[in-house]
Amino acid sequence: MSKFLSKRFEKLLPYVPGEQPQDKKYIKLNTNESPFSPSNSVVNAITAEEVQKLNLYSDPTAHNLVSAIEKYYGLDKGSVAVGNGSDEILAFIFNAFCDDKKGMACPDISYGFYPVFCQLYNIRYTAVKTDDKFNIKVEDYNKINDNVIIANPNAQTGIMLSLEDIEKLLCQDKNRLIIIDEAYCDFGGQSAMHLLKYYKNLIIVGTLSKSRQLAGARIGYAAADKNIIADINKIKYSFNPYNINRLSIIAGVKAMENKEYFEYTRSEIIKIREDTKIKLKKIGFVYTDSKANFILAKHNNISGERLYAALKEKGILIRYLCDLRLKDYIRITVGSAKQMEAFLNAITEIVKEKDLCEIHK
Amino acid sequence: MSKFLSKRFEKLLPYVPGEQPQDKKYIKLNTNESPFSPSNSVVNAITAEEVQKLNLYSDPTAHNLVSAIEKYYGLDKGSVAVGNGSDEILAFIFNAFCDDKKGMACPDISYGFYPVFCQLYNIRYTAVKTDDKFNIKVEDYNKINDNVIIANPNAQTGIMLSLEDIEKLLCQDKNRLIIIDEAYCDFGGQSAMHLLKYYKNLIIVGTLSKSRQLAGARIGYAAADKNIIADINKIKYSFNPYNINRLSIIAGVKAMENKEYFEYTRSEIIKIREDTKIKLKKIGFVYTDSKANFILAKHNNISGERLYAALKEKGILIRYLCDLRLKDYIRITVGSAKQMEAFLNAITEIVKEKDLCEIHK
Repeated sequence: MSKFLSKRFEKLLPYVPGEQPQDKKYIKLNTNESPFSPSNSVVNAITAEEVQKLNLYSDPTAHNLVSAIEKYYGLDKGSVAVGNGSDEILAFIFNAFCDDKKGMACPDISYGFYPVFCQLYNIRYTAVKTDDKFNIKVEDYNKINDNVIIANPNAQTGIMLSLEDIEKLLCQDKNRLIIIDEAYCDFGGQSAMHLLKYYKNLIIVGTLSKSRQLAGARIGYAAADKNIIADINKIKYSFNPYNINRLSIIAGVKAMENKEYFEYTRSEIIKIREDTKIKLKKIGFVYTDSKANFILAKHNNISGERLYAALKEKGILIRYLCDLRLKDYIRITVGSAKQMEAFLNAITEIVKEKDLCEIHK
Repeated sequence: MSKFLSKRFEKLLPYVPGEQPQDKKYIKLNTNESPFSPSNSVVNAITAEEVQKLNLYSDPTAHNLVSAIEKYYGLDKGSVAVGNGSDEILAFIFNAFCDDKKGMACPDISYGFYPVFCQLYNIRYTAVKTDDKFNIKVEDYNKINDNVIIANPNAQTGIMLSLEDIEKLLCQDKNRLIIIDEAYCDFGGQSAMHLLKYYKNLIIVGTLSKSRQLAGARIGYAAADKNIIADINKIKYSFNPYNINRLSIIAGVKAMENKEYFEYTRSEIIKIREDTKIKLKKIGFVYTDSKANFILAKHNNISGERLYAALKEKGILIRYLCDLRLKDYIRITVGSAKQMEAFLNAITEIVKEKDLCEIHK
């Protein structure tokens, strides 16, 4: 820390992203990326001619991308704002709509970045405990006046909150924003997008990183009432007007337009996820009912930390979450059929070795 | 504005970027882009194979890009942080190092985004008047305890501050940061990069948007003492860890490595700038001694606003700056020889028409 850093950031603990090793080839099942490459329509659109235009700024309104997202969801013009990944859009939202009077509440088990944004912007943060099975109980939010953010399906667990429950949250207090982060929604969740026309206190956040194969292009978005979108853009234009680069705008448009590839890849992920769950069960794992592109699983007698280390040794990266309530668990991104076969072979071996050790004790 | 926006942003006036019309083909001399395409080494590096990897997150440390910038400037490892354009890096700096105790001072004529960042982060902003010829007088900063940011060459005017003057600023108060924004430095300015080893209170900000032909790829950077860089990265990791996308990292590395193309394009810009100045003088313009890739010029009897409108009608976009002290001026980006020929033809016609009108009055 330099002596120049503002004192208010002395205790700031940044977000720690999943490992992105650049040295060695791992089977990467740790950051919920898609195992599928972007579609050919994306690849073909990034032409040499487009690269040659990189000397020109991108369209600050990202008009084509915003329109493609609005069109896909059947939303009115002006209902969508885009960000450099959904992390940037989330940061704008925390910054714009929270302050010393209005804090942010979220489930205790969720995306680890939410409390970091609260620290960054000096926002009161309330973690609302999920039940023993990590379920969100909407009645627990009844007396909370702060804005509420919920990942749905939830981060880490993949557990879905019903649209009925989301409507309950929206109705509890119309002066509070309900932000539904649908990063993982396309893998079997139910989008709340159609509720936008009934509720002015709803923001839906999405990303093209997971179900649209564009993690490396950094595209996220918010959909909400036009006035809310104008507020988000007010922050964007006061922070970084050209926040989406030229090639990402092109890639994003193509990814939104290619419904066929989107449907194919997400149904593959769902199929592989359910298949993996069954195989994990056979070797003694239990897991949450994940509707996301990852599985949160634990073994009866091997800790999450140990599994993480043993898998890494075998060239497979999964996510071990430091949260106290999740210390027994590992989070495995649903990769390709081939990646999951390698993962299952490795973890089966690890479990067997452990069992042998137990016998010899 | 929605009812949810924090009251502190009610009066926030966002930055207004130069027009980026997507409909019509203009000769764009309004946002200081390079008229040259990125080099072939950049174009050849963005292969279909790389686009196919967009399903994977970018390296959050952007190691290759950071290293390429450090190498180019001969800086130690850990001396550079990168951002999604220099606007993002500037935002991180304002956020990290200013607060209710430490404000930001800058010349009254400079990059219009600096006061916007101050509004966004609720930072005390002091505009220090430049003299009648827009020169910065470093003695005016002697009693200012706030951090100081200076674009060098200065935005809008292109006027250079000498390294001697920058050292005076650095020595005035070692508890104050001096941020030198070198966005336009490669077009005849003198970089303060070598001063980093002597001064711990210096941050240099740079961009690949202008002299490296990558405005559309969004890459900016800060170079400073390692502790300061760690502070900037602390903010980055609390805001958006994956802030540079995969393809921009690749393009940025190639742009930093291709010294030959960099030297060729920047010397061309300088040549065209000086040539344009002479031609503008012949038709009655005066201008500042710009060492940037733009010219700030005024005509004796045609207002900046009128010139802007007349040029736009002829399909040429230049920047008209609303600032009271600059209302007589226009800012013309130095384009290609062909673009400048079209500009000079158009403006000569406009001036002639005006002169004829005057005679007939």
